Amino acid sequence: MSQKLNTPKGTRDFSSLELKKREYLLNVLKNCFKSFNFQEIQTPSFENLTTLTGKYGDDEDNLMFKILASGDKIKKADIDAFKDNKLSKFSNSLSDKALRYDLTVPLSRFISQNLNDISLPFKRFQTQLVWRAERPQKGRFREFLQCDVDIIGESNILNELECIKVYDSVFKRLGMPKVDLRINNRQILEGVSKLMKLESVNEIASILDKTDKIGAEGVMKELKDRNFSDDSINQLKSLLNIKGTNNEKIKSLRSLFSSNNISLSGVDLLEEIIKTSEKFNLNNINLNVDLSLARGLSYYTGTIIEVSSPEEFNIGSIGGGGRYDDLVQKNNPRLSGFGISFGFDRIFLILEELKLFPSELDSSKSFLFLNFGLEKLNNIISYVDQLREKNIICELYPSDVKIKKQMDYANQKGVDYVIIIGDEEVKSNIFKLKDMKTGDQSSFDISNLLIEIENLN
Amino acid sequence: MSQKLNTPKGTRDFSSLELKKREYLLNVLKNCFKSFNFQEIQTPSFENLTTLTGKYGDDEDNLMFKILASGDKIKKADIDAFKDNKLSKFSNSLSDKALRYDLTVPLSRFISQNLNDISLPFKRFQTQLVWRAERPQKGRFREFLQCDVDIIGESNILNELECIKVYDSVFKRLGMPKVDLRINNRQILEGVSKLMKLESVNEIASILDKTDKIGAEGVMKELKDRNFSDDSINQLKSLLNIKGTNNEKIKSLRSLFSSNNISLSGVDLLEEIIKTSEKFNLNNINLNVDLSLARGLSYYTGTIIEVSSPEEFNIGSIGGGGRYDDLVQKNNPRLSGFGISFGFDRIFLILEELKLFPSELDSSKSFLFLNFGLEKLNNIISYVDQLREKNIICELYPSDVKIKKQMDYANQKGVDYVIIIGDEEVKSNIFKLKDMKTGDQSSFDISNLLIEIENLN
Repeated sequence: MSQKLNTPKGTRDFSSLELKKREYLLNVLKNCFKSFNFQEIQTPSFENLTTLTGKYGDDEDNLMFKILASGDKIKKADIDAFKDNKLSKFSNSLSDKALRYDLTVPLSRFISQNLNDISLPFKRFQTQLVWRAERPQKGRFREFLQCDVDIIGESNILNELECIKVYDSVFKRLGMPKVDLRINNRQILEGVSKLMKLESVNEIASILDKTDKIGAEGVMKELKDRNFSDDSINQLKSLLNIKGTNNEKIKSLRSLFSSNNISLSGVDLLEEIIKTSEKFNLNNINLNVDLSLARGLSYYTGTIIEVSSPEEFNIGSIGGGGRYDDLVQKNNPRLSGFGISFGFDRIFLILEELKLFPSELDSSKSFLFLNFGLEKLNNIISYVDQLREKNIICELYPSDVKIKKQMDYANQKGVDYVIIIGDEEVKSNIFKLKDMKTGDQSSFDISNLLIEIENLN
Repeated sequence: MSQKLNTPKGTRDFSSLELKKREYLLNVLKNCFKSFNFQEIQTPSFENLTTLTGKYGDDEDNLMFKILASGDKIKKADIDAFKDNKLSKFSNSLSDKALRYDLTVPLSRFISQNLNDISLPFKRFQTQLVWRAERPQKGRFREFLQCDVDIIGESNILNELECIKVYDSVFKRLGMPKVDLRINNRQILEGVSKLMKLESVNEIASILDKTDKIGAEGVMKELKDRNFSDDSINQLKSLLNIKGTNNEKIKSLRSLFSSNNISLSGVDLLEEIIKTSEKFNLNNINLNVDLSLARGLSYYTGTIIEVSSPEEFNIGSIGGGGRYDDLVQKNNPRLSGFGISFGFDRIFLILEELKLFPSELDSSKSFLFLNFGLEKLNNIISYVDQLREKNIICELYPSDVKIKKQMDYANQKGVDYVIIIGDEEVKSNIFKLKDMKTGDQSSFDISNLLIEIENLN
């Protein structure tokens, strides 16, 4: 191949060392989820387009990786749409499947499909890859691991608090610094968006979510640029101008929305969550009411939350979630759900930079038997077998090249000990053991090989 | 949604119980790979098409799931190709990426890309999903897990034997019955294909691989139908007619190919592997020379092997692999590789039907605290926290519905014990514990809660 071979844009290979760190983090997450009695499920990497589209928002739908129809199905290509420059229609005629964009919509499909076999409320966790055709940047990839917990079939605010506690427990287990968890309620925003004469807050959600970066003034300006009326902008302004502690904000919300029932019911829920959270011994989380938080995905209907990265990191949120009342079984008895997601790769970055990974991720030692040729294998093979059966990591160098080359391999690979059983050793019924860290070499009775090696492991 | 939501054809959801079994099998595989000192890597789910195409064969290339170009890239659609019914060309104009078809070609890309950081020989294992747009059938899915070990950078036959030993060790650890491992060498077939005036054995590999099902006679017939000359067919016939023990077959091969150097060098390697295998204490594997074995993928150049499922199962092979001399860094110093793959889902099926999964996959007990309302949380929360910190599985019912409903949930979910701390219990400083299997209920001093629960776990 003359062409340079590379991973596709926004994707990564993982080496053995990186995978050990990822496994550590994944195990902390999974063990925590299990201790809360969430049950694991997995879903396919791709879903039918009918399952996925129309749930996230139009921008998000365009960021899905669609799968090209295979075989003769491609004959259905809508060439007229292409000629009319209706690219989205053209693209839909070429595809009926897409890679998972998140884990929540597949969960809602899973529940609809398996409703008879599931006992409600259903608490599930899921740690699988998702794919988004976004522009890659620090901590943002096109293929990344999401770790979600959701509770379906209960609208009690205890579900919100249980999930907030999951964040708290995970961060505590990881030894992370305290982080801000921003909280809001979509109903507060829906009430305001009605006053703004919008159909839904989804029309301004993505602008609102920029408040973090461009400030309330920037948001107003952007709305003005988009020809929102002054009256409409002022409705939002009075919301975003609310300042103070959580309790002060809730007080201001009550007086601002005294005649707006939609917003008020959101305020009630927000207040109850803040109040009840005090009983939950949150160690690693500051709960902050943030009235500008909107969360992009259009399926959220109630409480929404987002976890900021620790202050010194400028990599956006490390988790988020919310309540969705209409995602599961739209036509059946309503199943309200609440769920959160962990941004695995961003948390990984933080652990890395704060040196929070355990110094020894894997303490088992490895052993290399030098190879003196096929005809000498009888001296070695049964030892290799017996060690491996005890899950002791060992290998025979895979050819009988010069000893120096075999030693170099041991060094480069980080093998801990080299075991030497050559002609001389066989004659004297011994084996030699070389410690590759210190360079020390000792001889032992060959009949004690298993015991000596087990003691080192 | 009026439409029924389903998993896409050939894909599956996994429940918590299925995942526990899959985790058991995966751990057996990984622990075994680790004991041989293979190092884990992971690669992205999709690769650039330039990396993937032309390695497997034309039929296989058509079974890849290609990813539709996103955004404006779709404007490059080759409409002329569509009009000329050149569907493959049209499809290639719409896509520059595809989902992984196997783990070997991504490995070769990984090595080319990271050659400076890798010490050779490179022993890696990889357990990731692959996707093939095949017709689903029993034990065959469109998304399935492959578990591969490969050794790159060594052509010594010890590599073949090391990998065969991996099969043997895994099957032994799983308690599987003895299985046939069929072995052949592509060079033997290449020598014959030259005599048949073919450019490569790849032209007839897929027909040869059917010998299992349609017999040597069936293969001859199919070649005749495809207008192969009698002379050409007879060349193959003399190969397929060779019968007997492994040693008898090798003897016959030597006399048949006395003047065919390509085939003879394959026979030499085959013989050396068979001979050396006797030193390797194979317990769970019968090594059988099978001269009709061709292995579909076109990258194989030397030894090829395939593991049959145990006799009573009719689900095809449960693993296979081979030597590939030209896959890695075609233009650089040749890096020969040998690798094998485990068919995870088919092995899973066998373990299931032979009842080889351990009876208790997860022995930890689970606990449910009954919920008596938000205002009573103080009595409970700190116990829940402390138990979870010890990784004891426990939960609080997520709302204060009727006790009967909470008990039903515990029953349906298979919770082991329900913990009751209501007003009455708080007053008497006790907690009640109900064993959901036996129905027994006992009272304990509340100050002993942690110890009592830990003892049950």
